[in-house]
Amino acid sequence: MTTYRWAELTRERLGALLPQAWVVLPVGATEQHGPHLPTGTDALVVDAVVAAAATTPTGRDLVVAPTLPFGASDHHFPFGGTLSLRVETMTEVLLDLARSVHAAGGRRLFVVNGHGGNRGPCHSAAQRAATAHPGLRVAYADYWELLLADAGPDPGGTPVPGHAGAFETSLVAHLRPELVCDLSDRPGPAAAPGPRAVTVHEQESWTRIDGFTDRPATAGADAGRQWFDACVAALAARLTALARS
Amino acid sequence: MTTYRWAELTRERLGALLPQAWVVLPVGATEQHGPHLPTGTDALVVDAVVAAAATTPTGRDLVVAPTLPFGASDHHFPFGGTLSLRVETMTEVLLDLARSVHAAGGRRLFVVNGHGGNRGPCHSAAQRAATAHPGLRVAYADYWELLLADAGPDPGGTPVPGHAGAFETSLVAHLRPELVCDLSDRPGPAAAPGPRAVTVHEQESWTRIDGFTDRPATAGADAGRQWFDACVAALAARLTALARS
Amino acid sequence: MTTYRWAELTRERLGALLPQAWVVLPVGATEQHGPHLPTGTDALVVDAVVAAAATTPTGRDLVVAPTLPFGASDHHFPFGGTLSLRVETMTEVLLDLARSVHAAGGRRLFVVNGHGGNRGPCHSAAQRAATAHPGLRVAYADYWELLLADAGPDPGGTPVPGHAGAFETSLVAHLRPELVCDLSDRPGPAAAPGPRAVTVHEQESWTRIDGFTDRPATAGADAGRQWFDACVAALAARLTALARS
Amino acid sequence: MTTYRWAELTRERLGALLPQAWVVLPVGATEQHGPHLPTGTDALVVDAVVAAAATTPTGRDLVVAPTLPFGASDHHFPFGGTLSLRVETMTEVLLDLARSVHAAGGRRLFVVNGHGGNRGPCHSAAQRAATAHPGLRVAYADYWELLLADAGPDPGGTPVPGHAGAFETSLVAHLRPELVCDLSDRPGPAAAPGPRAVTVHEQESWTRIDGFTDRPATAGADAGRQWFDACVAALAARLTALARS
Amino acid sequence: MTTYRWAELTRERLGALLPQAWVVLPVGATEQHGPHLPTGTDALVVDAVVAAAATTPTGRDLVVAPTLPFGASDHHFPFGGTLSLRVETMTEVLLDLARSVHAAGGRRLFVVNGHGGNRGPCHSAAQRAATAHPGLRVAYADYWELLLADAGPDPGGTPVPGHAGAFETSLVAHLRPELVCDLSDRPGPAAAPGPRAVTVHEQESWTRIDGFTDRPATAGADAGRQWFDACVAALAARLTALARS
Amino acid sequence: MTTYRWAELTRERLGALLPQAWVVLPVGATEQHGPHLPTGTDALVVDAVVAAAATTPTGRDLVVAPTLPFGASDHHFPFGGTLSLRVETMTEVLLDLARSVHAAGGRRLFVVNGHGGNRGPCHSAAQRAATAHPGLRVAYADYWELLLADAGPDPGGTPVPGHAGAFETSLVAHLRPELVCDLSDRPGPAAAPGPRAVTVHEQESWTRIDGFTDRPATAGADAGRQWFDACVAALAARLTALARS
Repeated sequence: MTTYRWAELTRERLGALLPQAWVVLPVGATEQHGPHLPTGTDALVVDAVVAAAATTPTGRDLVVAPTLPFGASDHHFPFGGTLSLRVETMTEVLLDLARSVHAAGGRRLFVVNGHGGNRGPCHSAAQRAATAHPGLRVAYADYWELLLADAGPDPGGTPVPGHAGAFETSLVAHLRPELVCDLSDRPGPAAAPGPRAVTVHEQESWTRIDGFTDRPATAGADAGRQWFDACVAALAARLTALARS
Repeated sequence: MTTYRWAELTRERLGALLPQAWVVLPVGATEQHGPHLPTGTDALVVDAVVAAAATTPTGRDLVVAPTLPFGASDHHFPFGGTLSLRVETMTEVLLDLARSVHAAGGRRLFVVNGHGGNRGPCHSAAQRAATAHPGLRVAYADYWELLLADAGPDPGGTPVPGHAGAFETSLVAHLRPELVCDLSDRPGPAAAPGPRAVTVHEQESWTRIDGFTDRPATAGADAGRQWFDACVAALAARLTALARS
Repeated sequence: MTTYRWAELTRERLGALLPQAWVVLPVGATEQHGPHLPTGTDALVVDAVVAAAATTPTGRDLVVAPTLPFGASDHHFPFGGTLSLRVETMTEVLLDLARSVHAAGGRRLFVVNGHGGNRGPCHSAAQRAATAHPGLRVAYADYWELLLADAGPDPGGTPVPGHAGAFETSLVAHLRPELVCDLSDRPGPAAAPGPRAVTVHEQESWTRIDGFTDRPATAGADAGRQWFDACVAALAARLTALARS
Repeated sequence: MTTYRWAELTRERLGALLPQAWVVLPVGATEQHGPHLPTGTDALVVDAVVAAAATTPTGRDLVVAPTLPFGASDHHFPFGGTLSLRVETMTEVLLDLARSVHAAGGRRLFVVNGHGGNRGPCHSAAQRAATAHPGLRVAYADYWELLLADAGPDPGGTPVPGHAGAFETSLVAHLRPELVCDLSDRPGPAAAPGPRAVTVHEQESWTRIDGFTDRPATAGADAGRQWFDACVAALAARLTALARS
Repeated sequence: MTTYRWAELTRERLGALLPQAWVVLPVGATEQHGPHLPTGTDALVVDAVVAAAATTPTGRDLVVAPTLPFGASDHHFPFGGTLSLRVETMTEVLLDLARSVHAAGGRRLFVVNGHGGNRGPCHSAAQRAATAHPGLRVAYADYWELLLADAGPDPGGTPVPGHAGAFETSLVAHLRPELVCDLSDRPGPAAAPGPRAVTVHEQESWTRIDGFTDRPATAGADAGRQWFDACVAALAARLTALARS
Repeated sequence: MTTYRWAELTRERLGALLPQAWVVLPVGATEQHGPHLPTGTDALVVDAVVAAAATTPTGRDLVVAPTLPFGASDHHFPFGGTLSLRVETMTEVLLDLARSVHAAGGRRLFVVNGHGGNRGPCHSAAQRAATAHPGLRVAYADYWELLLADAGPDPGGTPVPGHAGAFETSLVAHLRPELVCDLSDRPGPAAAPGPRAVTVHEQESWTRIDGFTDRPATAGADAGRQWFDACVAALAARLTALARS
C-alpha cells in the first residue's frame, strides 16, 4: 500500500496498479485572490493538502494524478490576473480525465477540488462519467467542505472557505509565506452571507467587496498550519473510508 | 406584492413586473422511482412545494415560471420509465431560461430544484448566467437541502431525500395518494451512505438497490403532510430572505 | 387500448406498455403573444389539442408525455415576456427525449408541435433520433398543418396559424377566456405573406407588426371552439392512421 | 441587374454588389441514390436548377454562392457511397455561411435546398441567422416544394420528390444521361406514404425499399426535361418575387 | 488503376472500389484575395492541382471527392467577400467526411488542403478520425508544403505560399487569367515573416498589409504554369508513395 | 526585464506586467511512453525547456503560465497509462487560456508545445483566439520543430522527435534519470516514416510498433544534455526575436 505519482510511472506500472488503486485528482484554479495573495492560491493549497493526506496509510494504493492548475473562474475576470476555463470546458476536462482513468484500467477516481467555481463541473463530470463508464466509481469533494463537515460551520469564527479571506490567507502564510503581501493598510470587507443552503451567484457581488471576503489581515501562519492539518486530517479520513469500499 | 404565473401573463404585464420581482423556476425530473411511485414524482413534488411556498407574503412580487418536467436522469435508464435530458443539455436549458429572464427585464431568478441529478447543471448554469449577464442575480437551492439545513440531518430517523424511499413516498402519499402502489410485499433495501461531504457516483450502486433507497413501506400520508409543510416553510423562509435583498 | 399519462405511471407499467404504444410528446413555447394573449398560449393550446385527441379510440395504447412548456423563441426577445431555448438547445432536448423513449423500450414517438419556431429542431431531432436508434419510429407534425392539410389554406379567410392573430386568439378565447385581454382599441396589422413554399426569416419583420399578425380583434370563443374541434379531429385522424402502422 | 458567381469576383466587386443583391446558396448532398443514379444526384440537380433560374431577369442582382456538395445524409450510410455531414454539422455550416454573407455586407440570402435530409438544418440555420444578425433576411425553400406548390401534389401521377425514383431519375437522365445505369431488370419498390402533413423518420423504412422509392424504370430524359423546366420556372418566380421585397 | 469522381459513381461502384482505393478530398476556401484575385482562388487552385495530379498512374485506384469550396477564413472578414466556416465547424465537416469514407468502406483518405487557415482543422480532424475509426488511414498535406519540401524555402525568391502574392497570383493567371484584375497601380506590401518554425496569429497583421502579401504585380502566367506543374508533380509523388502503402 | 511565474504573482503585479510582457504557456501531455519512460515525459520536458529558455535576457518581461500537464492523447489509450483530453476539449482549453490572457490585459501569448498530438488544437486555438481578440498576438511552436529548423532534419542520425525513442529517452535520462527504466532487453522497432510533408494518422500504426519509435536503447544522458541545450537555445532565440516585435 503505497502512494504514487501517475506522471512518474510507466504504462506497465500503471496497468498493474490501476485496477485496485484509488486515483486522486487535485483540481485547482489560477485566479485573482485579492491584492495580497498569489493567483495560484487554490492550486497550491489543494496540491499540498492532497500531497500530505496521500501519505496516510489507507490499506490501498493511491495514485496521485497531476494537479490541474486551472479552474472555472470567469467571474474573477474583472479583477485581472485570472487564467480561467469556461464552466463547460472545465466540465469536459474533468470528464475526459475520468474517461482516461477508466480507459487505463482504473476503477476508482477521487476528484479533490480546491475552488468553489468548480462545483458545477465536478458534479456534472462525475455524474456523466459514472453513467458513461459502468464499473467506474467517481467520488468528489471540496476539501474545505470536509473540514466543515467535521468541525461545523464557521470554525473559530472564521468564514470557511471565503475567498482570499483569513482562511485562505492563513493557509498560504503557512505554505508559501514569501508569496503573501503585506495587508496592514487594507481593511477587509464584510461579506454578506446568503440564506442557508442557497447558493447565490451575482457578478456584482464580487465587485462590491473588491474580490475578497472577510478579514485577511487577521490571518497568520500559525492559524494556517492548524487549518492545514485539519484539512489534511479530514481528507485522510475520507481516503481511508473510500479505501475500504 | 402578489404571486403570478408567468405563462398566464401578457408581455406587457411581465414587462412591468420583472424588474422588481423574483422569478421562481421549479425544476423536476421524470424518472423511475421504484416499483411503487410514479415517474413524475420529482416534478410533482417540487411543483407543489413551490406553489405552496409562493403564497407566502414576502413583500415582493413573485412570478412562477412553468415547471420544467424533465431533469438529468440518465443514471436511471437501466430501470426504464425515464425521460432524461443529458447533463449538458440540462445545463443549457437552465442557462437559456436564465438568459430569457434577463432578456425579459428580470433581475432575480431563483431555481428551486427537485432532483439530485440536477445539481451539476444548476450550479453550472447559475454560475455561467451570472457571469454572462451582469445585473442578474441567480439563486439556486435543492428543496430538501433547505429542510436539512433547518432540521438537521436524518430528521426523525428518515434519510432525506433518499430516492423513492420513505421521504418521497410519504410526500406522494400526501399529494397524490392514488398514484402510490402497494408496498407491503417489497422489503426495502438498505442504502449504504458514503463518507460525509463526499459525493459518490457509481452506476452499479443503483442496480444493487433496485433503484430505490431505505424503507418506502414505512411511508404514510401523515408523515408526508408533515414533511411537505416543513419543506414549504423552509422554502418560504428563503423566499422572504431573498425578497429583502 | 387506453390513454395514459407517462408521469403518472410506474416504471413497471411503462415497461409493459411502451413496446407497443405510441408515445405522444406535446411541444409548446412560452413567448410574447401580443398585448392581448398570455405568454403560455402555444403550450396551453397544444396541450389541450393533444389531450382531447388522445381520447380517440385508435386501437393502440397512447402514452402522453409531459408537455414541454418551452420552445425556440429567441426571435420574440425584443418584445419581452419570452422564455426561450436556443434552437440548438431545443434540438438537443427533443433528441434526448426521443433517446429516452427508446431507452425505456418505446418504439413509436409522435412529436406534436405547437410553435412555428420549433420546426427546425423537430425536423433535426426526429431525423437524428431515427438514425441513432434503429427500431425507433419518430413522427412529427405541427398541429395547425394537419388542419391546413385537411381544410386547405386560409380556411374561412383566416390566416392559420399566424401569430397571436384571429386563429390563436380564438383558441385561447375558447380554452381560457379569462386570459384574453380586451382588444377593442388595437387595430390589427396586416401581415405580408412571402412567396408560397418559401420560408422567410427576418428579425425586423416581427418588429414592423408589433409582434402579432392579422386581426385578433375579430377573434371569438365560438370560432375558437370550431377551430379547436377541427384541430383535434385532424390530429385524431393521424393518431388513428399511425396506430395501424 | 446581372447574375454573378461569388467565387469569381474580387472582394471589391462583392463589397459593391452585396448590399443590394440576393445571394443564392444551392445546397446539395452526396449520397446513395439506388443502384442506378450517381451519388452526386442532389448536388448536380440543385446546382443546375439554380444556375438556370438565376438567368431570369428579376430586377435585382443575383450572386450565386458555390454549391455545397454535401448534406445531412447519415440515414443513407447503410447503403454505402454516402458522404454525409451530421445534422448538427450541417446546421453550423449553413449558419456560418449566413453569418459570412452578413459580414460581407449582404442583406438577403436565399438557401435553395436539394435534399430532404437538409430540412431541419435549413430551418434551424435560417432562424438562428435572422435572430443573430438583425438586418439579414434569410429565405429558404426546397426546390421540389416550389414545384408542388405550383403544380399540386403528385403531378402526372409521379411522387415528387421521392428518392431516386422516377422524378429524380428523369432529371438526371436529362442533365447527365451518361451517369444513369440501366434499370430494366430492377422492378421499383412501392413507397408507402405516411399520413398527410406528418413527417415520419425510421431507419428501417429505407432498408425495406432498398434505398429508393417508386418506379425509376419509368423515368426518361423527356420527362426529365419537363420536370427540370418546371422546377426552374417555379424557382425563377420566387427569385422575382423576392427581388421586389 | 483508374481515377474516379465520387459524385459520378453509384453506391455499388463505390462499394467495390473503396476498400482498396485512396480517396482524395480537396479542401479549399472562398475568401478575399486582395483587390486583384477572385475570392474562389484557394478552391480553384487546389481543385486543379488535385485533378491534374490524380491523372498520374500510381498503381492504385483514386476516388476524388467533391472539392469543399469553403474553409476557415474568419480572419479575412474585415476585408469582405469571404464565405467562412468557423474553425470548429470546419473541423467537424472534415471529421464527418472522414467518418463517411469509413462508413462507405473506405480505408484510405488523403486530405489535400489549399488554405493556410485550415491547418488546425485538418490536423485535428485527421487525428480524431484515425482514433475513432481503427482501420482508417488519414493522410493530410498542404499542397504548397509539398512544393517547399521538394524545392526548399523561397523557391526563386518568391514567398510560398504568401496570400494573394506573386505565387497565388501567378497560379490564377495560369489557370483562369480572365479572373485576375490589373495590378499595375497597386504596389505590393512587404510581408514581415515571423521567427522560423513559429506560427504567429494576429488579426491586425492582415489589416496592416491590406490583406495580401509580397508583390502580386510581379506575377505572370508563365511563372504560374511552372509553379502549377511543380505542385502537381509534388502531389503526384505523394500519391504514388501512398499508393504503395 | 525579468522572468516571472504567473501563479506566484498577485493580480496587481500581473495587471502592471501583462500589457508589455510575453506570456509563455508550456503545453505537455501525460501519456504512455513505452515500457521505459514515465507517462509525464512530454510535460516534464517542455516544462524544463521553457524554464531554462525563459532565463535568457530578451529585453522584455516574460510571465510563465502554469504548465498544462495534459494534452490530446487518445491515440495512446490502447497502451494504458494515458490521461488525455479529447482534441476538441484541448482546443477549448487553449482558447480559454488565450482569452484569459487577453482579459487580464495581456497582448502577447506564446504557446510552447511538447506533444505532437496537440498540433491541431494549438493551430486552431491560436487562430480562433487572434480572430476573437483583436489586439492579441498568439505565437505557437513545437519545441522540437525549433530544433529541426535550426539543425536540419535527423540531426546526428536520430529521428526527432519520434515517440519515446532515442531523442526523448535521452532528454529524460538527462532531466530525471531515476525515471528511466532499463532498456537492455528490448530491441527498438523501426519506425516507417511517411512521405515528406504529409502527416499520416492511423491508429494501428502505433500498435504495430508497440507505442514507441526508433532505438531508445541507444539513448544516454550525455546526448540528452546536448539535445536539451540545443532545444533551449532554439527556444531562447525565438523568445528574443518575439521580444523585439
